[in-house]
Amino acid sequence: VPPNSAPHDPAPTSAPAAPRIGVVGGGQLARMMLGPAIELGLPLTVLATDPAESAAQGAARVRIGRHDDEEAVRALAAEVDVLTFDHEHVPPRILEGIERDGLAAVRPGPSALVHAQDKLLMRERLSALGHPCPRWWRAVSAADVDAALAEIGAAAGEGAAPAPRAVVKTPRGGYDGHGVRIVSAGGDVADWFEEHDELLVEELVPFTRELSAQVARRPGGEMLALPVVRSTQKDGVCFEVLAPAPDLSAADQERIQHLALRIAEDLGVTGMLAVELFETADGEVLVNELAMRPHNTGHWSMEGAVTGQFEQHLRAVADLPLGASAPRAPHAVMVNLLGGSREDLAAGAREAMARDPELKIHLYGKTVRPGRKVGHVTLAGEDPADLLARAHRAERLIIDAVHEEQSA
Amino acid sequence: VPPNSAPHDPAPTSAPAAPRIGVVGGGQLARMMLGPAIELGLPLTVLATDPAESAAQGAARVRIGRHDDEEAVRALAAEVDVLTFDHEHVPPRILEGIERDGLAAVRPGPSALVHAQDKLLMRERLSALGHPCPRWWRAVSAADVDAALAEIGAAAGEGAAPAPRAVVKTPRGGYDGHGVRIVSAGGDVADWFEEHDELLVEELVPFTRELSAQVARRPGGEMLALPVVRSTQKDGVCFEVLAPAPDLSAADQERIQHLALRIAEDLGVTGMLAVELFETADGEVLVNELAMRPHNTGHWSMEGAVTGQFEQHLRAVADLPLGASAPRAPHAVMVNLLGGSREDLAAGAREAMARDPELKIHLYGKTVRPGRKVGHVTLAGEDPADLLARAHRAERLIIDAVHEEQSA
Repeated sequence: VPPNSAPHDPAPTSAPAAPRIGVVGGGQLARMMLGPAIELGLPLTVLATDPAESAAQGAARVRIGRHDDEEAVRALAAEVDVLTFDHEHVPPRILEGIERDGLAAVRPGPSALVHAQDKLLMRERLSALGHPCPRWWRAVSAADVDAALAEIGAAAGEGAAPAPRAVVKTPRGGYDGHGVRIVSAGGDVADWFEEHDELLVEELVPFTRELSAQVARRPGGEMLALPVVRSTQKDGVCFEVLAPAPDLSAADQERIQHLALRIAEDLGVTGMLAVELFETADGEVLVNELAMRPHNTGHWSMEGAVTGQFEQHLRAVADLPLGASAPRAPHAVMVNLLGGSREDLAAGAREAMARDPELKIHLYGKTVRPGRKVGHVTLAGEDPADLLARAHRAERLIIDAVHEEQSA
Repeated sequence: VPPNSAPHDPAPTSAPAAPRIGVVGGGQLARMMLGPAIELGLPLTVLATDPAESAAQGAARVRIGRHDDEEAVRALAAEVDVLTFDHEHVPPRILEGIERDGLAAVRPGPSALVHAQDKLLMRERLSALGHPCPRWWRAVSAADVDAALAEIGAAAGEGAAPAPRAVVKTPRGGYDGHGVRIVSAGGDVADWFEEHDELLVEELVPFTRELSAQVARRPGGEMLALPVVRSTQKDGVCFEVLAPAPDLSAADQERIQHLALRIAEDLGVTGMLAVELFETADGEVLVNELAMRPHNTGHWSMEGAVTGQFEQHLRAVADLPLGASAPRAPHAVMVNLLGGSREDLAAGAREAMARDPELKIHLYGKTVRPGRKVGHVTLAGEDPADLLARAHRAERLIIDAVHEEQSA
């Protein structure tokens, strides 16, 4: 008898006031909520598309179903008190129906979540609210894209390169670089118009670095901000995070935190909100993306802050008082483990542990594919350069097969 | 369809080298291994006697069966690589059979574990090894107890109280004050001789405080020591821990850590070993009890050390390199939540969270009964007196119903 088919019918916990949490999506973000949910005594059920998914491997309560299957999402909602998310891809009409029928509290609610689901709606709303964004255009045809490119070229003036370029994004469904192209002509996204009624065109921001500001917000409005971090991307995927962002004055950090807090309030977010930002040479910031859930740029907080982002998200959506977001050490780093040449991550993790006893390793239980996020490492301490060097050394030890051969 | 009866057949993780862990016992110690096991990518199966048990509520893989049911323990062993424990009550012959038949690695092994199972064996072995113990006697009759009392009285000399006293313990099966009596005559334990062939008699040590020294040891012998902590008991149950122990010189701390490391090595322990100690007025320490698993006196390390004791135990029994045991802050405290007048711990936790955003709360999912360990809180920071005051305030808020009424 395999363990999973053994009789297993967990009784409700002894705490009638502990809200039952349902998480739509079985990825690593849901997985990393499991530990904090166990410690806080919050029963958590995951809706995964497959029993082998990251969170389904570790969860006591799993439903199998798709995030866009109305019956599956409603069935989860009916047996929990609070519905929250591993990703932002649940169709709004499903969530509106759950709210309307009072099946569960939806946090973040669909009216907030839509701004993380639809990049055109996000740009419209943030612009209307006066929050700083790159210049953007709505395009319903390749000609609209060409018109935006012409505007960009005209603004660049005489000395500009002959072929102006822009970023084009599909409003929905993109992630980790998917659904984003850099184009120099409307024809470059002709194929996308076959599937999408409209696309978002944005200027290519000449940013000096990327920052991320995370805040947590309860249904009643209580909010707090995490330290602003520096996020480094590789091929459109977050790769390395340094907390707090270096060379950021206290005044700038506060200004950016306040921007993120205002966005959370303006949009009525509940749970964690990540505001990904471009910083430009003149020290201004422009909003790049929003995510209404724990975010890759907040993984450092699992060990690096008094309250990690997964516990904080649970506290926020369960309407529990928020936890302190103060760092536990002056600096913390996070480096993603992106699938490389080694398939046996456990063997790599063993080598990295042996080299660095302070290293914290998080593996997501995912099969290795090139570039796929399969885990991350964190370190906290005094010297950011040292922490970054050690985290990247660990990353290579874990994902690179060459070390496996060397040590064999 | 309840979530637990949904199809749920977790596939093995992508990491073939990650050992599968089986934990015998479904209490809070097994429960607190779940989060670290998920993050390290170690598939963990719990053998619980009831699906409502603490660890069974949170585990993805649960077998239902008793720790003293040979078939149940062997069935668990057959499907994992490493067998470890939530408590020390598994009969040695079951574990010896599993080792003999090569079903799984047993860590700690039965030849080590027996010293945490049988207090007479522990006293014999530690005395033979020259480790400091209270004076002790083996008693097979009430007359033997009286003879020990007479020796204690004679040693106390002229000025002593007329009725010497001793501690009598059942060699097996005791915990949290159960199986321990303070007696002044052999007749006080006449009933115990009906069930036990022999009892352990010990002098009442005039200790000034209790200390606890924890170490981790891998199968190959790699070891490390955690900071020595001060443990405070109430009615035989650990109640409060301060890490590191105050007013302990570096030399004394090192001496005590070396004692615990030597015991781990002498007995061949794998995993976590807790050595509970009496400190006497002259600064000497005497071994009180041994536990070969994560221990209540190590809960502070979950947030207070770079590697918490539950992660450390998993690393040790899985034969992974040990993690740094350094504290993350100068001081950390742990206060147990012992069942009081409030049944709804979640409501109490909400109040405590609101009062102290730095507080870390761990609830075990157990029904409240008077004095039962139902959770614990930790705090880490600079000022131990402040941390203790805040942790005890939180404890009262969580377990005391009077606050519930006041706030209603």
